[in-house]
Amino acid sequence: MPKISTKGSHMPESPIRKLVPYADRAKENGIEVIHLNIGQPDIPTPKVALDAVKNNTIDVLSYSKTEGSVSLRQKFADYYKKHQVDLDPSDIIITTGGSEALTFTIGSIADPGDELLVPEPFYANYYGYTTLNLVNLVPITTSIDDNFKMPSIKYLERFLRPKTKAILICNPGNPTGYLYTREELEELVAFANEHDLFLVVDEVYREFVYNGHKHHSILSIKGSEKCAILIDSVSKRYSMCGARVGCIVSKNKEVIHTAMKFAQCRLSPPSYAQLATESVLDIEDSYYEEIQQEYEKRRNILIEELERIPDIKVGIPNGAFYCVVELPIYDADHFAQWMLEHFNLNNKTVMVAPAAGFYSTHGLGRNQIRIAYVLEENKLREAMRILAKGLETYRTL
Amino acid sequence: MPKISTKGSHMPESPIRKLVPYADRAKENGIEVIHLNIGQPDIPTPKVALDAVKNNTIDVLSYSKTEGSVSLRQKFADYYKKHQVDLDPSDIIITTGGSEALTFTIGSIADPGDELLVPEPFYANYYGYTTLNLVNLVPITTSIDDNFKMPSIKYLERFLRPKTKAILICNPGNPTGYLYTREELEELVAFANEHDLFLVVDEVYREFVYNGHKHHSILSIKGSEKCAILIDSVSKRYSMCGARVGCIVSKNKEVIHTAMKFAQCRLSPPSYAQLATESVLDIEDSYYEEIQQEYEKRRNILIEELERIPDIKVGIPNGAFYCVVELPIYDADHFAQWMLEHFNLNNKTVMVAPAAGFYSTHGLGRNQIRIAYVLEENKLREAMRILAKGLETYRTL
Repeated sequence: MPKISTKGSHMPESPIRKLVPYADRAKENGIEVIHLNIGQPDIPTPKVALDAVKNNTIDVLSYSKTEGSVSLRQKFADYYKKHQVDLDPSDIIITTGGSEALTFTIGSIADPGDELLVPEPFYANYYGYTTLNLVNLVPITTSIDDNFKMPSIKYLERFLRPKTKAILICNPGNPTGYLYTREELEELVAFANEHDLFLVVDEVYREFVYNGHKHHSILSIKGSEKCAILIDSVSKRYSMCGARVGCIVSKNKEVIHTAMKFAQCRLSPPSYAQLATESVLDIEDSYYEEIQQEYEKRRNILIEELERIPDIKVGIPNGAFYCVVELPIYDADHFAQWMLEHFNLNNKTVMVAPAAGFYSTHGLGRNQIRIAYVLEENKLREAMRILAKGLETYRTL
Repeated sequence: MPKISTKGSHMPESPIRKLVPYADRAKENGIEVIHLNIGQPDIPTPKVALDAVKNNTIDVLSYSKTEGSVSLRQKFADYYKKHQVDLDPSDIIITTGGSEALTFTIGSIADPGDELLVPEPFYANYYGYTTLNLVNLVPITTSIDDNFKMPSIKYLERFLRPKTKAILICNPGNPTGYLYTREELEELVAFANEHDLFLVVDEVYREFVYNGHKHHSILSIKGSEKCAILIDSVSKRYSMCGARVGCIVSKNKEVIHTAMKFAQCRLSPPSYAQLATESVLDIEDSYYEEIQQEYEKRRNILIEELERIPDIKVGIPNGAFYCVVELPIYDADHFAQWMLEHFNLNNKTVMVAPAAGFYSTHGLGRNQIRIAYVLEENKLREAMRILAKGLETYRTL
């Protein structure tokens, strides 16, 4: 009998995968499951994007260019200009989602056994992208006690080894909501340049920043030309997760040339999704403002509701739409499953993401969960009531 | 300055990539370039697929299921039933094109340094999918003199080593058009089972078979349950290359479970393309018959035209829509470039794919080209006249 690969057996499972059957069973039993576990916005996709697909005139659905059409990449360049980033279309490769952008990038800059420094907790799939490239993810642990603030460069230096190839950050962060300051980014660029590292920055939540804070793109930082690789996606920004369009952006021509060879293997990104994307990239600025306001409201409601729950700790997010919460329990995996299996309030329950999957250091995050605040006000308040009541009951068990 | 990875530097370039600037320059100079170099059909995508996308009612373009919806996978299962393959939707993972299906499959079954046996010449991107997984592709050379017939099992045995993990074939073959007989497939299954190998079969050209021959799916072969992994795509079958929908099919649960972990990393396949696919999979049988007849006609025209050209050898294809041709020259790379740079007939020229990129054995295929017969009759005849005249001129240089 043939055997699967060692790499395949080491590939991580999605942290919520094993909860899915419990959620399915709850639904079969007539329980409504409110999903706080996944970053799937409920916001309608902009009409201009939907219409571009509905009104398409394609008759032969042919391959697009491997790197995306010039016109699409020019639209991306125009969009980045609004974020103080000057680009040529040749600095951009259109990918099938941010996921593919990260997979190609990691393959382009790191060999098996090489190391990437990644602030922890991190987006769980980073562990997948590194594992499939056999690259080691070296976690730099951050703490909920200071809202997952980036550690000092002095501290980062301790993790440097000959095999260190890059730093990978998410700004603003999933799952932490941490937003890097301009000074921190400047320090990271200087650090990367000093030690010949790449600096990979996942900015898919760029527009989701709160509390009057401002997002700074890594490519707007002086000196980032050689080291910086920006990862982007239209999934969250335009509520277009199903499109599967993202991009790799870098002024480093060698990076683009190498990533293009990975891209050629998969021929082209999806055509319909590129139509939708090209039409939405120059949407009026009021769209971003409305979305930002809506999520800021949700964030504030979430924090307000969470702060009413006794004995929990909240990692206050300044960006993205996730929040890590520490619960007065031992095992959030067990709690999350219990909420689906044994708890409901008026036939409703909530599904949360246990946070251990966002840490690679064994044992960390076991009493934490990640909440995605992608639901409208009333639904979110209701979900928080259910969570609070569930937690209260769970603690008496 | 940070350095790209060794793997990235080893990734192959597409064999036609370096010709593209010459084609672009010819076009700028007013020369019409007829593309024989790429398998992009000119056949309209079925209306039912185009309409499914035009008439979609999506308002939030959300993630689909990682493995594709049950209804889509059920439609695939119904489709395979017509090819004597009995499947459950859980045997199928929808992927972003056949390319992703192959990348995930190779990552699931082979570790760095492991070996895959692949009849040569092979689809050039197989070299990319193995390189990005750091897996070694071991070529089993076949010959144009017997139309690239599969070598005997006895011969294959010589290539077995402890690191051999699988055999990868394309049936019918790109670029050879070679169609495996049922007996050959039975032998391959027995061989794979005897030596604990996987048998990966790329069947994306399943319906394109000629001369009264019949295609046999690997999953219709008894005993294939544990070893066989079928790779599929809707790109060619429905002239939907830009959709980016394919699938991995296997009765081996461990393979599916492992490939799913790779799939979870990229969240989901593109949503619009899945709509198009779901609507087209139960298209009436007459569609396949018409397409088959059209390509058979093109194939016959191609062979008829090629056989008029002196001193060339044609690998007669029984399937797919490619043909390898050996030319009375030394370097097809140079010839292909020359055709774009220096030759035209009434302001038209042709672009062909030099075949060396379809071989991994150094030096093989240098006097061969691959022709994709994806053009309608008149265009194809014209392209052949241009090729013949160009070759005649080139030989006098």
